[in-house]
Amino acid sequence: MAPSATTYGTSPASEAAAAQHKNEQDVDLTGQALEHKMAEIAKSKNGSSTPSTKAELDASKLIYELTTSPRPVPASIEAACAGTETICTDHMVTVAWDAETGWATPELRPYGPLSLMPTASVLHYATECFEGLKVYRGADDKLRLFRPDCNAQRMLTSAVRISLPAFPPVELEKLIVALMAVDGPKWLPRGGGPDEYLYLRPTMIGTQPQLGVQAPRSALLYITASYMPRLDVVKGGMRLHTSPEDMVRAWVGGFGYAKVGANYGPSLQATIEARARGFHQILWLYGPEGYCTEAGASNFFVVLKDKETGQTQLVTAPLDDRLILDGVTRRSIVQLARERLAGEVEVVERRYTIAELQDAHKEGRIVESFAAGTAYFVAPVSLVHHRGEDIPIPMATETGGKYTKLVKSWISNIMYGQESHPWGVVIEERE
Amino acid sequence: MAPSATTYGTSPASEAAAAQHKNEQDVDLTGQALEHKMAEIAKSKNGSSTPSTKAELDASKLIYELTTSPRPVPASIEAACAGTETICTDHMVTVAWDAETGWATPELRPYGPLSLMPTASVLHYATECFEGLKVYRGADDKLRLFRPDCNAQRMLTSAVRISLPAFPPVELEKLIVALMAVDGPKWLPRGGGPDEYLYLRPTMIGTQPQLGVQAPRSALLYITASYMPRLDVVKGGMRLHTSPEDMVRAWVGGFGYAKVGANYGPSLQATIEARARGFHQILWLYGPEGYCTEAGASNFFVVLKDKETGQTQLVTAPLDDRLILDGVTRRSIVQLARERLAGEVEVVERRYTIAELQDAHKEGRIVESFAAGTAYFVAPVSLVHHRGEDIPIPMATETGGKYTKLVKSWISNIMYGQESHPWGVVIEERE
Repeated sequence: MAPSATTYGTSPASEAAAAQHKNEQDVDLTGQALEHKMAEIAKSKNGSSTPSTKAELDASKLIYELTTSPRPVPASIEAACAGTETICTDHMVTVAWDAETGWATPELRPYGPLSLMPTASVLHYATECFEGLKVYRGADDKLRLFRPDCNAQRMLTSAVRISLPAFPPVELEKLIVALMAVDGPKWLPRGGGPDEYLYLRPTMIGTQPQLGVQAPRSALLYITASYMPRLDVVKGGMRLHTSPEDMVRAWVGGFGYAKVGANYGPSLQATIEARARGFHQILWLYGPEGYCTEAGASNFFVVLKDKETGQTQLVTAPLDDRLILDGVTRRSIVQLARERLAGEVEVVERRYTIAELQDAHKEGRIVESFAAGTAYFVAPVSLVHHRGEDIPIPMATETGGKYTKLVKSWISNIMYGQESHPWGVVIEERE
Repeated sequence: MAPSATTYGTSPASEAAAAQHKNEQDVDLTGQALEHKMAEIAKSKNGSSTPSTKAELDASKLIYELTTSPRPVPASIEAACAGTETICTDHMVTVAWDAETGWATPELRPYGPLSLMPTASVLHYATECFEGLKVYRGADDKLRLFRPDCNAQRMLTSAVRISLPAFPPVELEKLIVALMAVDGPKWLPRGGGPDEYLYLRPTMIGTQPQLGVQAPRSALLYITASYMPRLDVVKGGMRLHTSPEDMVRAWVGGFGYAKVGANYGPSLQATIEARARGFHQILWLYGPEGYCTEAGASNFFVVLKDKETGQTQLVTAPLDDRLILDGVTRRSIVQLARERLAGEVEVVERRYTIAELQDAHKEGRIVESFAAGTAYFVAPVSLVHHRGEDIPIPMATETGGKYTKLVKSWISNIMYGQESHPWGVVIEERE
């Protein structure tokens, strides 16, 4: 029984997985049963299951309540990010959900505080998930999102994992577009420079004001737009500290693949300590083998020469053990590099250990490395520190090595419209 | 660097652990470094480190703002718990914390909604922890807490684990007492019957309105008092379903021992499915060996006859791998059973597997079983279902076996004042 009996979408692969699981006992109790659930959601979209009587998330019903006290636009991203509070735009989108009635009418309304009862589910049981994506003011002065369908789909995956309601991902995408259509012209003005962006944060929280460990019967989906500092230009490159043996970020059978709050709070302690020692992020290792998984909250890539063949490889951790986030930037890099570096660089998604990196360093086979994600974009890595030993990583220039800069430029060109590509989704602005 | 440089208390054992760790590399990055941190907090209480300039949590400064619209007391616990919203008493205690200034003045004020910015840390990164304890109206009409010092100490442990500020546990205890001194007389009236209790929920949340994965620089500690249904009388006993192989609650190096939101939300999916099949809770197994850890959010006990010696043993999972919650009820049962059943029952904290339980069942060695925690109190278990196979567990009576009822009566007698014991802490009521 899903927390919501509503509808919609997933990858086709999961249908096969679900069919297979139907023949096994306890199917709905397994972690993979979430794929089963997602497949059912997808099927109901195609009309093969009985329609729900509950209201579905419907962006076309969006009500606009525009602010009467517009706020000043900061002079620069740096000014906007100097304080201890995130500066948001004039508006946010909110949609309430209730287990009995389904999704309420979406509202675009003035940005401001939320009112939550002290007993609200999210404040006790971490019934929360989110997404992060950016909107870019292009070289052609158009506003673009980068693959928002990927974020919307992942938000659904995260929501199901944390027992929050399902929704049609495309409706979330439309709500994101609606918010930027209103706030884009003022907060990301035309002619504002090629690097300007805003950070969008779709969030869902369990709001039911009842104590007791149970799936919330009410929830709130909301979307904010704000400033976020540039993190991709780290002087001298990012320095990573491996996680200690007795502190684990995610584990097989857990929820490392979902963008749920429970992946973040518990990781702060190690990150605080690493920063206090002059490192930027933790490189999270997994298991006694020390598999490299994620760098902070970003995906981690290494370019190296294969030990046997000498072939240049772009290596990153695989998705299939569900330990790491299926990053949109990660996925895009893998796809583009396979297309555009074919014959030159082999793109490999596989498990690899910190010992392999140490070996590669000793043998001079590490070419370069970078972290990739929405917040960090593509940020060069210059050092990994592991158990008292440094693994220095070459940086051809202050802004990274050849491949780091190459993949970054490909994606940046799509984001800012220098390259016309289906991944760059143009927003029609309301003015 | 702790998120707060404030003060206070932990167990003496951690000092030795900390001293040992000082000689090891990367001490502050290890999971056990939290013990180091706790030891430093304890040391600063003894005046051996420099005093902080930030305000400390100080219950003696409590400001009383009493309600002007008192609310009606429900007719019964059943009536109070019939809806989808937890009914709280007239007041709550709130204390704000800020990284620059420390703890603000505690306030006892009318119960009502909290105002949080949509960007608040707790809503995205699960920077939250809580406690659960009850206040009892005794047979002698006195109000009592049960070992509130244990809850306050554990709240500090959880707060440090999730990068929320430290505080002197005794001050939290005083604030709990202050709330019940005001709301106790009305909401848990004298002569209200021997089983009456309220549920107290100290909670701390990260309130800093800034996106980005970092320790919050502002937080809110609050305490509510509410009704919670009786969960210890399950008709026919509790039926548990083991967790599937590919879904894990907690793991070594994680945070299973802390009462942080991140332990709860991700467990809901399996629990929902188990309930839909007529089970009450998940029995969480760990590792390929299938170690029994927790039953739902309660500790799990089995009474069995030892395979070799025939000795009756009360067995429960150990604390030392930090997978399970250090339950106050668990700890109390272990302590009392060691004192009061010496020579009759051996109390054993050790790892044990589901296969061992299956063997014990086949050999007729299972005597009884129960789950223990603040919410479930001591609830008899009548069945464990594992991979398609039932392990039935004897229940001498509808309310459990001999030892289940015995340990329950011991603790109940302390809670309700039939036995005078230092664990029962009497509250002086304000009237």
